[in-house]
Amino acid sequence: MSRVRIAAAQVDTCVGDLEGNARLVLEWTRRAADAGADLVVFPEMTLTGYPIEDLALRASFRRAAAATLDRLAQDLVAAGLGQVAVLVGSVGERTTAGVQRPTNDAVLLRAGRVESRYSKHHLPNYGVFDEFRIFTSGDDICVVEVAGRRLGVVICEDIWQDGGPVSQMDANDVAALVVLNGSPFEEGKGHVRTELAARRAAEVDAPVVYVNLVGGQDDLVFDGGSFVVDRDGTTLATAPQFVEHLLVWDLADEGEPSLPGPQVPPLGADEETYRAVVLGLAGYVRKNGFRSVVLGVSGGIDSALTAVIAADAIGGENVVGVSMPSSFSSQHSKDDAADLAERIGADYRVQPIAPMVDAFQDQLALEGVAEENLQARVRGVVLMAISNREGHLVIAPGNKSELATGYATIYDAGSIGGFAPLKDVDKSRVWALARWRNDHAVDRGEIPPIPESSITKPPSAELRPGQTDQDSLPPYDLLDEVLDAYVEHAEGRAELLARGYDEAVVDRVLQLVDRAEWKRRQYPLGPKVTALAFGRDRRLPVTSRWREP
Amino acid sequence: MSRVRIAAAQVDTCVGDLEGNARLVLEWTRRAADAGADLVVFPEMTLTGYPIEDLALRASFRRAAAATLDRLAQDLVAAGLGQVAVLVGSVGERTTAGVQRPTNDAVLLRAGRVESRYSKHHLPNYGVFDEFRIFTSGDDICVVEVAGRRLGVVICEDIWQDGGPVSQMDANDVAALVVLNGSPFEEGKGHVRTELAARRAAEVDAPVVYVNLVGGQDDLVFDGGSFVVDRDGTTLATAPQFVEHLLVWDLADEGEPSLPGPQVPPLGADEETYRAVVLGLAGYVRKNGFRSVVLGVSGGIDSALTAVIAADAIGGENVVGVSMPSSFSSQHSKDDAADLAERIGADYRVQPIAPMVDAFQDQLALEGVAEENLQARVRGVVLMAISNREGHLVIAPGNKSELATGYATIYDAGSIGGFAPLKDVDKSRVWALARWRNDHAVDRGEIPPIPESSITKPPSAELRPGQTDQDSLPPYDLLDEVLDAYVEHAEGRAELLARGYDEAVVDRVLQLVDRAEWKRRQYPLGPKVTALAFGRDRRLPVTSRWREP
Repeated sequence: MSRVRIAAAQVDTCVGDLEGNARLVLEWTRRAADAGADLVVFPEMTLTGYPIEDLALRASFRRAAAATLDRLAQDLVAAGLGQVAVLVGSVGERTTAGVQRPTNDAVLLRAGRVESRYSKHHLPNYGVFDEFRIFTSGDDICVVEVAGRRLGVVICEDIWQDGGPVSQMDANDVAALVVLNGSPFEEGKGHVRTELAARRAAEVDAPVVYVNLVGGQDDLVFDGGSFVVDRDGTTLATAPQFVEHLLVWDLADEGEPSLPGPQVPPLGADEETYRAVVLGLAGYVRKNGFRSVVLGVSGGIDSALTAVIAADAIGGENVVGVSMPSSFSSQHSKDDAADLAERIGADYRVQPIAPMVDAFQDQLALEGVAEENLQARVRGVVLMAISNREGHLVIAPGNKSELATGYATIYDAGSIGGFAPLKDVDKSRVWALARWRNDHAVDRGEIPPIPESSITKPPSAELRPGQTDQDSLPPYDLLDEVLDAYVEHAEGRAELLARGYDEAVVDRVLQLVDRAEWKRRQYPLGPKVTALAFGRDRRLPVTSRWREP
Repeated sequence: MSRVRIAAAQVDTCVGDLEGNARLVLEWTRRAADAGADLVVFPEMTLTGYPIEDLALRASFRRAAAATLDRLAQDLVAAGLGQVAVLVGSVGERTTAGVQRPTNDAVLLRAGRVESRYSKHHLPNYGVFDEFRIFTSGDDICVVEVAGRRLGVVICEDIWQDGGPVSQMDANDVAALVVLNGSPFEEGKGHVRTELAARRAAEVDAPVVYVNLVGGQDDLVFDGGSFVVDRDGTTLATAPQFVEHLLVWDLADEGEPSLPGPQVPPLGADEETYRAVVLGLAGYVRKNGFRSVVLGVSGGIDSALTAVIAADAIGGENVVGVSMPSSFSSQHSKDDAADLAERIGADYRVQPIAPMVDAFQDQLALEGVAEENLQARVRGVVLMAISNREGHLVIAPGNKSELATGYATIYDAGSIGGFAPLKDVDKSRVWALARWRNDHAVDRGEIPPIPESSITKPPSAELRPGQTDQDSLPPYDLLDEVLDAYVEHAEGRAELLARGYDEAVVDRVLQLVDRAEWKRRQYPLGPKVTALAFGRDRRLPVTSRWREP
């Protein structure tokens, strides 16, 4: 019995990139070995990436994953790493009633072979998760031996449900519980994870090593933030969020007090959300093979913040900002757009839309909302054309309040493209993140990237003279409160009225939200950062006559 | 003991329309009573509509459904229908571990009260179904007594899984098994349902009365086709597909041979799919409060078939067909579009796109694919403008082969709008349905609605001189075979090559399909008619480096 050095390898895998993910395992196992680790633990579904959705149902995919795992075991030995115990996640198979069904597995590789294999018991099938759809549950527990100590192994949801494999670990007398996770970011979730892990640590009377995935995958951002928590709830070690990291921690000798490891200070709420959005965009751009993005910059706060996020994600020199003024665009808006682009070093272009809008109007003579929408859609066509010509990813600056209420023109420059960084950030939060980002620049002695007037002026789509958002919507602070209650907390009209909101405001907001479902279905992907994002987190019919009574 | 008259009320409910659905129950119970029925059985989730998705998770929705059910029980009595046993579906609640969870219930109303309540055991969570996400399972069985006979009651998936409630019915000695269904249409599914029901009839040694929902709901079409099957597999009675209907059938006296009821001849495969698409569109239009649709008509087969489907769904006079010729549009295409519109009595308009395209080109000077896409997107803007001005629903004529391969410009006139009738119909089937529809007209002594040359000419997007689809794609018959194997049957590259397909074709098709996922995510809803439709039936990540080895 002696100390066991455990390395939590918080890596950024890519869905479907079996070879690339196997190379990551090899590379980070080397680092762990260099740090003297006996065991290196990777996140959930390391080899396949996470979540793989219906890829799990393709037999060819499962075969390739199995072959990659076998090759990896050999490659580790060939690289002189055969003596390190390596815990990786991958897709497995289980035959029940003659049918092969996928499993979500943790696999211990050592000395060139698969030494143990564990299949996740609890399959989450709520919120953004569909695991009951694609996986079948395991029912064996898994205890592995490393340097003479017994370590329990479970996967993510296994610790979120009471009962199940963890409840059987205590009787097995484990020295530590190791958890492979693919836990998506949402604001405030860090505390929930720590408290949950602490409860399991108390349950098994041993420290819990929690290893989380990091990186962006479609609408999810995995924030890393791996940690070790002791049986008494003390945090023993923490890894930073939003970056790849190797967290090394020593399991004390039997009977000895737990040993502390490295710790990082927690991030503030705004910084955490900002970094999540940046990582989500960076992951989408890189993993889909893009090098640059293009967006419309209006001088408004949404496009300004989106452009700055893009600059932080992939470098300002890879951001193309296109100002597309109309006759209703104010001079200050045009100035703010140019100012923003200069601050972040973007490729800035000006493309007035009047000639195209006039050509349509000569033919169609639109008025009112139809005319407003026309301007917005002409901008969308311009952006898509630039994207087609030059290969940039189009990003959409629309925010969550807009998406919730449908206060945006479908197929306009705010809602087309491949990725919408602010999709899950409501307008109130857009301002907060903009202020945080500017303050953060000041703290570091840099120029604040967002022009102050983009933050302070009243929001307007500038599609008709003197228009502001508040002509059509309640004030954003009130709107966002009602949206939060109705959308994220699924409160009914009666509950909202009981909380004192004005009846007319409540009815207006609910009507807007219910009617906009069809637009939301066609919106680009964007990173989930709240407890409930639009998309697979909230699945409602488009065709529905339900109106809150 | 005497004959029991059972009426299967195959009605078209609307999701969320609690009051409207309750009125349907009242109205069809009266018809059943007029026909002398002792029991009237409605489809799954009658009061709420089906599927309700995450509406189930809203407490306010469940409360309203419960109140509606109680009112309905009273209203039935007030209407003099208290003596009829009425089996309806609705959402229920079950408290497990202190948490209220929704259930998918069948409820027997009689004499003004809820007499029995059954919660569905087997919750489908595959394909288009997410019931494990929103419901909790029941574990009691349900046998109701009507006119002195014992009838077993189960819901849809309960008969698709072996074991469960049906396996306990035999011991309960039921005289018939009644099944409330919300079974979406897919080609060839009728036989599967009948065989399955026959197996359960043999299992319980009693006839099975299968009552199915009818109508369009977002991407699903419920085809009705209710039926009664005997213990020996004989079909005793059938209702027509795609229309509301009351199927009345008598359960024979105990010990007597089963009685036959009315039967309708089955539809051919093309007619069945055609009618499914028509009903899907009609349901979307009506239930979302539209009265008319607008689409681009190019003279090609996709838009011609889509316009005819729309005319069949809501009347040709409610269809606006907009011809938007460019300099590459052939005269025969323009003639075919005009001819089509005249045949179906559509509101036909011509809007040349050259002035708008030229205005963009003066500014952007696009070439190649970017220039082609520009023309396509200008058409999209024109259609959306007409929709905004006049309130028509925009429908997209894109077909499944196009959606699969991404062979379409995102945000063009083929892929924008609220509903895409041909979304799940591949190009080969588009031609087959067009031919069927024309033949059907001839059979009825009517003018074939689709111009013959739209069917016979080589398909072309006409975005550059002399362009045809086969410049970029394999021949459609080959393409559709490969797509069917890869997409619907999830075969791998190795399986496709082993079946003799050309390697270059296979690699090209797989690459196209994999790359087009992001476009599919932003596509309008369209009716599922095959075993696997794009959308919630096939959930794959956009960000994925998986390539079939």
